Amino acid sequence: MTELATAGIAAADIHMIEAAARRLHGHARRTPMLSSPFLDEIAGRRVLVKAECLQHTGSFKFRGAWNAVSALHPPGVIAFSSGNHAQGVALAAKLKGIPATIIMPSDAPRIKIENTRALGAEVVLYDRATENRDAIGASLSKERGLTLIKPFDMAEVIAGQGTAGLEIAEQAAEAGVDAADVLVCCGGGGLTSGIALALEARAPGMRVRPVEPEGFDDVARSLVAGEVQTNARLTGSICDAIVTPRPGALTWPILQQLCGPGLVVSEAQALRAMALAHDRLKIVLEPGGAVALAAALFLPGPGDAVIAVATGGNVDRAMMRRALDLPLEG
Amino acid sequence: MTELATAGIAAADIHMIEAAARRLHGHARRTPMLSSPFLDEIAGRRVLVKAECLQHTGSFKFRGAWNAVSALHPPGVIAFSSGNHAQGVALAAKLKGIPATIIMPSDAPRIKIENTRALGAEVVLYDRATENRDAIGASLSKERGLTLIKPFDMAEVIAGQGTAGLEIAEQAAEAGVDAADVLVCCGGGGLTSGIALALEARAPGMRVRPVEPEGFDDVARSLVAGEVQTNARLTGSICDAIVTPRPGALTWPILQQLCGPGLVVSEAQALRAMALAHDRLKIVLEPGGAVALAAALFLPGPGDAVIAVATGGNVDRAMMRRALDLPLEG
Repeated sequence: MTELATAGIAAADIHMIEAAARRLHGHARRTPMLSSPFLDEIAGRRVLVKAECLQHTGSFKFRGAWNAVSALHPPGVIAFSSGNHAQGVALAAKLKGIPATIIMPSDAPRIKIENTRALGAEVVLYDRATENRDAIGASLSKERGLTLIKPFDMAEVIAGQGTAGLEIAEQAAEAGVDAADVLVCCGGGGLTSGIALALEARAPGMRVRPVEPEGFDDVARSLVAGEVQTNARLTGSICDAIVTPRPGALTWPILQQLCGPGLVVSEAQALRAMALAHDRLKIVLEPGGAVALAAALFLPGPGDAVIAVATGGNVDRAMMRRALDLPLEG
Repeated sequence: MTELATAGIAAADIHMIEAAARRLHGHARRTPMLSSPFLDEIAGRRVLVKAECLQHTGSFKFRGAWNAVSALHPPGVIAFSSGNHAQGVALAAKLKGIPATIIMPSDAPRIKIENTRALGAEVVLYDRATENRDAIGASLSKERGLTLIKPFDMAEVIAGQGTAGLEIAEQAAEAGVDAADVLVCCGGGGLTSGIALALEARAPGMRVRPVEPEGFDDVARSLVAGEVQTNARLTGSICDAIVTPRPGALTWPILQQLCGPGLVVSEAQALRAMALAHDRLKIVLEPGGAVALAAALFLPGPGDAVIAVATGGNVDRAMMRRALDLPLEG
């Protein structure tokens, strides 16, 4: 165990992750670890894929949301998100029987707004140009007594995401793999840091490496620089689910202490990974949820095996068609 | 327990299925039971989906193949198939380190031939117009000492497929469901009869119902008639994976004794179910693997919950595009 964890510096630790696992038991899915000899052939090593796209609401985000609402017992919750975090929080609140308010920009895709509403949440829209999101959130939060569930920079959320790491440790051991790089699609670092904490304690032969899309590689550059770096822009990526301004205040120290060097893939590689996941694993991935698989398949790496976390599958049909229009491979 | 099982009339029984489960443990995947509130809304009841498309080689067929090669210890195996059974047998043999010979028509899709070869099998092609498949098989079988693995009419195969039923019983209980229709995409009836035997013993509140595409509903008509009926034609269905001439000699008595009335869906409904599985469950289904989900979603049925077995995901990209071109729903 590193000094970080023993010294209690980290926002979350293995005990919080184990407590989260007890809360999630019977509520979150234990997602399968998938593989295909065809993908092994492409990568030149065994590729194990943790299919978090099969989690409730189509991404790992339900884990952190469920843990937060279970641990904090809030009378109601509020979140800022137009994406996977919104759906995770909305479903967790619905299942707990508490109200959820989700604040989204008014130009968010119609389908995301509708999906979040269909999960029982009240969606409050704001105008990005003229209104202040945080002010609206603070006002609603106070008025209604709602607890803010942050997308990654929150101990309960990191611990909840870390439960995926406990499962990876067990499933990798069942597959006979005890030392490998574990590649994780990385935005703010909630999932990556949670998995790193879990594996440090439960499978110390594993090395967690964040994976990001080209041009939005703040975590990879931060790890190289030894201090937080930011992204020059926040729009224009098909991997929108994992584009964040910078690593989180709570997640960054964990990433820095526990993770190996970051990996960066192109959008084209993410789309190829989506197509191969369709063809060979029979799962649906969104571009941001496919970057770790892309890195496992197309980038060199050490060892006989690599583990990729496929973090989400909330892709619109047009994007999936774009992936399926690529040439067959593998 | 019915007279059928106690009298030992059935080709397989719960003890054979339990033995198969022991053989499959650690080799076949325990596939997840998925669900989505959006699908529940469409169906007007809870829909649980057993995702056998996530089994090795993309369909449940690996279960029966693995059980057969594990139980019979053949020096080598042979099978007639251009589809899911071929891949299941090829991978099972490869993992056992024994040779597999797969006999396919020379006009089988290139990709299916290549996939089967890539799984280590020798593919022997024959001309449907001028050559006799069975004669080629018998000759090769004798010459090389190979054991024929039939696609459904074989006790070890039925028992292997039945292991999916044991998992359904456990997973349904975990979900709080102990009485429901269990809808199974049905070709020759190996999976359907295996699941029916498993559930008769382990979850007697369940009723198994075969689901077929319009125009290829030999099992549904056989159940109505009380005797085996055949399909008028064997080609021209997009649900080719589950089109067979008639129920099997071993499977039919089990289907007749244990299954409820058959259900029939249109090709359009199968495609809609594929699109909804993509959007809401993040899994890839082939048309023949989607008919049970289609029946669960679009046909009326009793009870608060229904279970659909999504049997396979080996779909070519053009067919998936066809499904994704349908209007959004649910």
